[in-house]
Amino acid sequence: VTSKLPQTGTTIFTVMSALAAETGAINLSQGFPDYDCPPELVDLVTRAMKDGFNQYAPMAGLMILREQISIKTEKLYGATYNPDTEITVTAGGTQAIFTAISAVIHPNDEVIIFEPAYDSYASAIKLMGGIVKSLELEPPDYRIPWDMVKRLITSKTRMIILNSPQNPTGSILSKTDIDELIAIVKGQDIFILSDEVYEHLVYDGQEHQSMARYPELRKRSFIAVSFGKLFHSTGWKIGYCLAPANLMQEFRKVHQFLVFSVNTPMQAAIAEYLKDENVYAGLPAFFQQKRDYFRNGLKNSRFKLLPCQGSYFQCVSYQDITDEKDADLAIRITREFGVASIPVSAFYSKATDHHILRFCFAKRQETLDKAVERLIKI
Amino acid sequence: VTSKLPQTGTTIFTVMSALAAETGAINLSQGFPDYDCPPELVDLVTRAMKDGFNQYAPMAGLMILREQISIKTEKLYGATYNPDTEITVTAGGTQAIFTAISAVIHPNDEVIIFEPAYDSYASAIKLMGGIVKSLELEPPDYRIPWDMVKRLITSKTRMIILNSPQNPTGSILSKTDIDELIAIVKGQDIFILSDEVYEHLVYDGQEHQSMARYPELRKRSFIAVSFGKLFHSTGWKIGYCLAPANLMQEFRKVHQFLVFSVNTPMQAAIAEYLKDENVYAGLPAFFQQKRDYFRNGLKNSRFKLLPCQGSYFQCVSYQDITDEKDADLAIRITREFGVASIPVSAFYSKATDHHILRFCFAKRQETLDKAVERLIKI
Ligand SMILES: CSCCC(=O)C(=O)O
Ligand SMILES: CSCCC(=O)C(=O)O
Repeated sequence: VTSKLPQTGTTIFTVMSALAAETGAINLSQGFPDYDCPPELVDLVTRAMKDGFNQYAPMAGLMILREQISIKTEKLYGATYNPDTEITVTAGGTQAIFTAISAVIHPNDEVIIFEPAYDSYASAIKLMGGIVKSLELEPPDYRIPWDMVKRLITSKTRMIILNSPQNPTGSILSKTDIDELIAIVKGQDIFILSDEVYEHLVYDGQEHQSMARYPELRKRSFIAVSFGKLFHSTGWKIGYCLAPANLMQEFRKVHQFLVFSVNTPMQAAIAEYLKDENVYAGLPAFFQQKRDYFRNGLKNSRFKLLPCQGSYFQCVSYQDITDEKDADLAIRITREFGVASIPVSAFYSKATDHHILRFCFAKRQETLDKAVERLIKI
Repeated sequence: VTSKLPQTGTTIFTVMSALAAETGAINLSQGFPDYDCPPELVDLVTRAMKDGFNQYAPMAGLMILREQISIKTEKLYGATYNPDTEITVTAGGTQAIFTAISAVIHPNDEVIIFEPAYDSYASAIKLMGGIVKSLELEPPDYRIPWDMVKRLITSKTRMIILNSPQNPTGSILSKTDIDELIAIVKGQDIFILSDEVYEHLVYDGQEHQSMARYPELRKRSFIAVSFGKLFHSTGWKIGYCLAPANLMQEFRKVHQFLVFSVNTPMQAAIAEYLKDENVYAGLPAFFQQKRDYFRNGLKNSRFKLLPCQGSYFQCVSYQDITDEKDADLAIRITREFGVASIPVSAFYSKATDHHILRFCFAKRQETLDKAVERLIKI
């Protein structure tokens, strides 16, 4: 077999979660909670199955769910998305991302991504014959160097991929970033893929800068959102994509052949759950408490805490502690101290290692306590 | 937007199901049952959710499910698939098909398909820059003309896509077909993608010719299977792919970026359900009864019944009744007589119209009664 992705191994998330399971370590690597999703949501799935929601959903998703998504988007961002033509339910955020890239990236199209980045972006681009143009962001703040973005743009630039709140760094786009972005894309034939799966996980009273808010960006954006991260049910794999009708038409051409439709009873349950207007209201405070708790605990460690404005990840620098590569250290800490993390070098296409580890703090207080207890011994 | 799939509209399944819903017609178009999945299976999903199976499954699927799939495949086809390296759980059969094509088809690779064919094959091939080489099968028997296959093969042929039981024709591969296929691929660098989503729906005591049975085929095959068709839960979107380790490695490279993982509680429930050794035993008789019942009813109609050896579709010819195009007639019968079907021309890339309609008979007896009552009026 001639591999189409010769440089691709197993994702770091699989590797570290497997190592955590094997060694019995506390798993702060892959991004999922260790507490359960709301029992009402579970009951709603049961009810949906008993009510017979067990056959193919429409290709774009159950209309009752798309309608709720539309209402929510309007309320949050003042943006109107037509459920008929501008919203498609997907098997999670990852499928939305892959499908958007597949739908519009032709061979030799250039796509700008910012690293460290979720590893699916570059692989999807390459699989479509596109060319990855990556810009490295610098710790500790990981701001986007817009001057350099400007210089990267050519007539072949077809897409810019953004991710705010950002995985793994926890940085978020500011209003200034948005202004810079608008100045760059205005009048250009450039799409945006905006990975907003952590949309409500923004802290310290800041605002999530969804592309949906800005007409100049909205009209060229695929926005990928995930319910798994919001409803503590990452294993249900329900997300969605928002895009203007002309882009959504291309998205659905791929979606219908890629997966055709998405789990029906989960869709029905989430549609019902979203009718509660306050369903998202508690999320920022809920996760901010966890972030603060974890950061506070690590103050007594030798790690240096990087800023965390959003997402459910806390990055720490260990450059004052050891010279080890981050991949080696992540494995050693898992084995010797019993806490699994993700080495941030895994989010770069080049061999970039700033000696930073990522910890997921979407965990119960006891879990964070135990992890901190172990991490302060390092 | 420059479309990557300019010829693609909305799939016929979406179009006809929507028309059926709009007109209140009996929907014998898209392939899904109008009776419910087993209540025990619903209870198992509820239990899985309550037991906390709500976070990311491993990328390749829950091990308990892969183990059950391995046991079942061994028992049915005498073929050993290693759950670790040769089985991956997918979001339905369609995702398995798309992923296999994405994983190994490079630009300009040729792929042989047999039409009429499920419309996702050609689109996935084109999206990867591959070249579709389609051979048309002739009604009423739709046998594969192996001589012509032989002549189609070039140094660029990378894959042959098979589908038995076949959608839409209900034909199945015979042992003679298998011998011909083996003679053609032996010693060649050609993959097989075998769409076996209707694997247990084979009638009149015949045997399903899975690629898994034949070492010469197994070693080069991706086999796509779906639980939705077997457990009357097409909306759950759980299926899987079987492939030898070297092919599965490439499959997973795409799978992990395409969807990452698949609905966890549904996987856990199906794993439990599969422990019942007889879970598949009643399926052929169950569906054969429906086929016979529907065929018997249509004997009093002006349609000519084509053979149906498997799948849950019955094709009928109307060439003695009218000259209308099948797409026009399918719409007219939906509107005027209240029964939705699929025009078989939708399964061809060329403008081929043999004046044949496809009806799904995976329906309750009352539904079939009512449909027949209407169809005999035509
Ligand atoms: C699908 S796992 C990857 C996303 C995530 O949760 C992570 O970054 O850990
Ligand atoms: C995913 S709908 C297509 C498969 C099928 O069920 C059909 O042919 O009707």
